[in-house]
Amino acid sequence: MSEVKKTTIVLFSGDYDKAMAAYIIANGAAAYDHEVTIFHTFWGLNALRKEELIPTKKGWLEKMFGKMMPRGADKMGISKMNFAGMGPKMIKHVIKKHNAMTLPQLIEMAEEQDIKLVACTMTMDLLGLQQEELLDGIEYAGVAAYLGDAQDSNVNLFI
Amino acid sequence: MSEVKKTTIVLFSGDYDKAMAAYIIANGAAAYDHEVTIFHTFWGLNALRKEELIPTKKGWLEKMFGKMMPRGADKMGISKMNFAGMGPKMIKHVIKKHNAMTLPQLIEMAEEQDIKLVACTMTMDLLGLQQEELLDGIEYAGVAAYLGDAQDSNVNLFI
Amino acid sequence: MSEVKKTTIVLFSGDYDKAMAAYIIANGAAAYDHEVTIFHTFWGLNALRKEELIPTKKGWLEKMFGKMMPRGADKMGISKMNFAGMGPKMIKHVIKKHNAMTLPQLIEMAEEQDIKLVACTMTMDLLGLQQEELLDGIEYAGVAAYLGDAQDSNVNLFI
Repeated sequence: MSEVKKTTIVLFSGDYDKAMAAYIIANGAAAYDHEVTIFHTFWGLNALRKEELIPTKKGWLEKMFGKMMPRGADKMGISKMNFAGMGPKMIKHVIKKHNAMTLPQLIEMAEEQDIKLVACTMTMDLLGLQQEELLDGIEYAGVAAYLGDAQDSNVNLFI
Repeated sequence: MSEVKKTTIVLFSGDYDKAMAAYIIANGAAAYDHEVTIFHTFWGLNALRKEELIPTKKGWLEKMFGKMMPRGADKMGISKMNFAGMGPKMIKHVIKKHNAMTLPQLIEMAEEQDIKLVACTMTMDLLGLQQEELLDGIEYAGVAAYLGDAQDSNVNLFI
Repeated sequence: MSEVKKTTIVLFSGDYDKAMAAYIIANGAAAYDHEVTIFHTFWGLNALRKEELIPTKKGWLEKMFGKMMPRGADKMGISKMNFAGMGPKMIKHVIKKHNAMTLPQLIEMAEEQDIKLVACTMTMDLLGLQQEELLDGIEYAGVAAYLGDAQDSNVNLFI
């Protein structure tokens, strides 16, 4: 009897390309029968935001953060060569051209493969994000739950 | 008898938010009875700098680096949305508002929890940082010592 | 009989200083008798590009990417304090002054130590990079091969 392998990824980054890398590795690991968790914290939470504007009651500062941060995976910028927004367009263009998957498609695939998508409650608090604003069906947890997963994982990454 | 779990983090980044994430995970792991090491290299060394200007004898280039880099955790910028320095202020503001811990407080907590804080001697040399400029009570080591810790760790992260 | 230890690094970043950190850890691990793999993906592929312009047949978009991205390790920028290109010069200057190894020298050392240098075929496709443009003697693989290495590794890092 072989033990189940585990992969646990912290997605800290709010960059489109880094989130792509995280979700490509996660989907690959799930296809390999790993138990996979992606723990979204800080700017990585933006990948889980719904695209539509969700009405919420927030303080001024939290509203500001909410406006400044991209609403959902499709709106995220890239880490290099942003060139006044041209970079993300180029990346999405080549993704289509090569029939590769976009970030929203990769996230959908992760949901279908039962990858555990977790939103860090502590940084949600800091950035003023509320559960209604994030994708349905994800989990909410803190650093203790992350460590519980990570300490038994074969592959741990911070992205 | 269960074996002691270990967490080893390379802190390469000089960003306030990334260093926060590193220290939150480290403090969490220590609370979970992990043996925890944070190995500070390159810009991550700035988190260990004393706030006051320490008089040292340095070459011109090392002086330049010393001036250009932030003196201590409190002065570090954030990785996203810096907006002419407004970002770090907003982050610190929400930290206070939510009674969360600032980076200097997280570092203090790490010291109290006996987390091993290590400064990478090779990159200290490169950036011209001297031991007098860094916090008292930390350790000094190179990549060999890092690997000695990392190869037996349950959780390895590069931040 | 002790088992062989393994270190597997994803090099995603195209920053000179981050690539240096990756190669320093990799060379250290190899010296410690680890089996070491560096899996180059996205901007990290630039570290493997040949310096000379290799004539290739490409679409317009792929040519653009090829021009915009640095050709080889020596041309890469740094993650912090770029200051209109002054940063990389300063770093290279202090490297020489302290008799440390430059990134091209670290890559050469990695090849001599039989570190497995892998280029991610999926992102090569996306960015329009062709095998003739990359260093000779490297390997080509996808995320499945990466996970095969990573799941048995003692040290896994994403840089």
